Amino acid sequence: MAARALIQAIPISGIPEVRPGDSVASLIRAALRKSRLRLLAGDILVVKHKVISKAEGAVARLDGVNPRPKARRWAEKWGRDARVIELATQNARGVIRMKNGVLITETRHGVVCANSGVDLSNVDGGTSAVLLPTDPDGSARRLMAAVRRARGLRIPVIIADSFGRPWREGLTEAAIGVAGLEPLRDFRGQVDPHGYELHASAEAVADELAALAGLACGKLERIPACIIRGFRYQPGRGGAHKLIRPAEKDLFR
Amino acid sequence: MAARALIQAIPISGIPEVRPGDSVASLIRAALRKSRLRLLAGDILVVKHKVISKAEGAVARLDGVNPRPKARRWAEKWGRDARVIELATQNARGVIRMKNGVLITETRHGVVCANSGVDLSNVDGGTSAVLLPTDPDGSARRLMAAVRRARGLRIPVIIADSFGRPWREGLTEAAIGVAGLEPLRDFRGQVDPHGYELHASAEAVADELAALAGLACGKLERIPACIIRGFRYQPGRGGAHKLIRPAEKDLFR
Repeated sequence: MAARALIQAIPISGIPEVRPGDSVASLIRAALRKSRLRLLAGDILVVKHKVISKAEGAVARLDGVNPRPKARRWAEKWGRDARVIELATQNARGVIRMKNGVLITETRHGVVCANSGVDLSNVDGGTSAVLLPTDPDGSARRLMAAVRRARGLRIPVIIADSFGRPWREGLTEAAIGVAGLEPLRDFRGQVDPHGYELHASAEAVADELAALAGLACGKLERIPACIIRGFRYQPGRGGAHKLIRPAEKDLFR
Repeated sequence: MAARALIQAIPISGIPEVRPGDSVASLIRAALRKSRLRLLAGDILVVKHKVISKAEGAVARLDGVNPRPKARRWAEKWGRDARVIELATQNARGVIRMKNGVLITETRHGVVCANSGVDLSNVDGGTSAVLLPTDPDGSARRLMAAVRRARGLRIPVIIADSFGRPWREGLTEAAIGVAGLEPLRDFRGQVDPHGYELHASAEAVADELAALAGLACGKLERIPACIIRGFRYQPGRGGAHKLIRPAEKDLFR
């Protein structure tokens, strides 16, 4: 019942184009220094997955992709890039829907999203595709550890990607990697101000934090990271895999 | 490519329990005054739907609900409250899934969500259920108009509810009513910093703003509204219906 505090999202500008092998932690540190920003205890760092993927080399040149006939036929029918469909299939554990030109897959991480997260935007103008990081929770943990080494602060890290949703138009940013905070805030068994016990309530705070980063970073402004300040998160190991509903509980596969 | 600004979410505390016929605008105005907060040009007001529903009388006493045999049997099988299932069915245009104790419906507004949004929490301890407002876009427009009359400012309004998602655990706050801003930011045809033209990108900014309100308001703290400051929204008429994917484009009905 404590009063809630102001929450701030501070965009981190000045992060240059990321290349394979770059240290995202160093690039963020340099950008913060240039902007005269400092990470403070209690802050959360949200980073768009593309800078992580690029730094880790999770990028594929499209001219090296040779689509199978099935991918080629389907792409042609729906006016899609067959190489993206091929990469999406290669990076999928299974296909959830493939219809009306829309390909929804379950990635190797268990995330359900369009095209296995394979994306041509914000890379190099259409010659390469960015893939999802191999292990986004691991990437988040490594970035958190690097910040801790450099600054001596325990700053939780969220790695975000934008996803579509069934039934709703538009993309929203969601968490695909989480370190240092509990991605779900569980209210079950707690009692509301009227004495009613909450039964089915857990809040996907990591996804809401990612959504806020979506607002703060934008899509075209080369701002791939932000600081979220003032949100009283629940410290924890993290793990975006906790945000993935187990297949047996899911009604939409 | 302009630098992005800081975004702030300021919780509005001190809003009392809302009763049918109350003016939400007046209650918010009084709460702001007590907290020495002022709405400024550029602010967005996000309000949880429950205060709107209560003010508009969209509340049902559970002892007046007489569940049909089918609702009764299904509720008993899954350990659910039959009266909630009955109310959800009465307030639905159709059932999307009814399985494993989970009821997903399409409401009369076209929103797809659990139990048609019927909810027992944060009402009166379990004797009444809150329904969705009859016309949340209209409610948002009326609240915006009331703020304009009182303060002379054009403040967009979002009415938020928390929804589950297929494939992902936890609830996130989403926009069910929008006035004064474009709920979707359309990037199609725009060019990224690498010269690549975006094809399928629209950002559901109203849902991301609602998600931020979820973080700022919490679930147990009697903070049913917040001010979002610093987000450069696109002014427009609004309309949360724009966030609803037309059935013929949807792959998950």
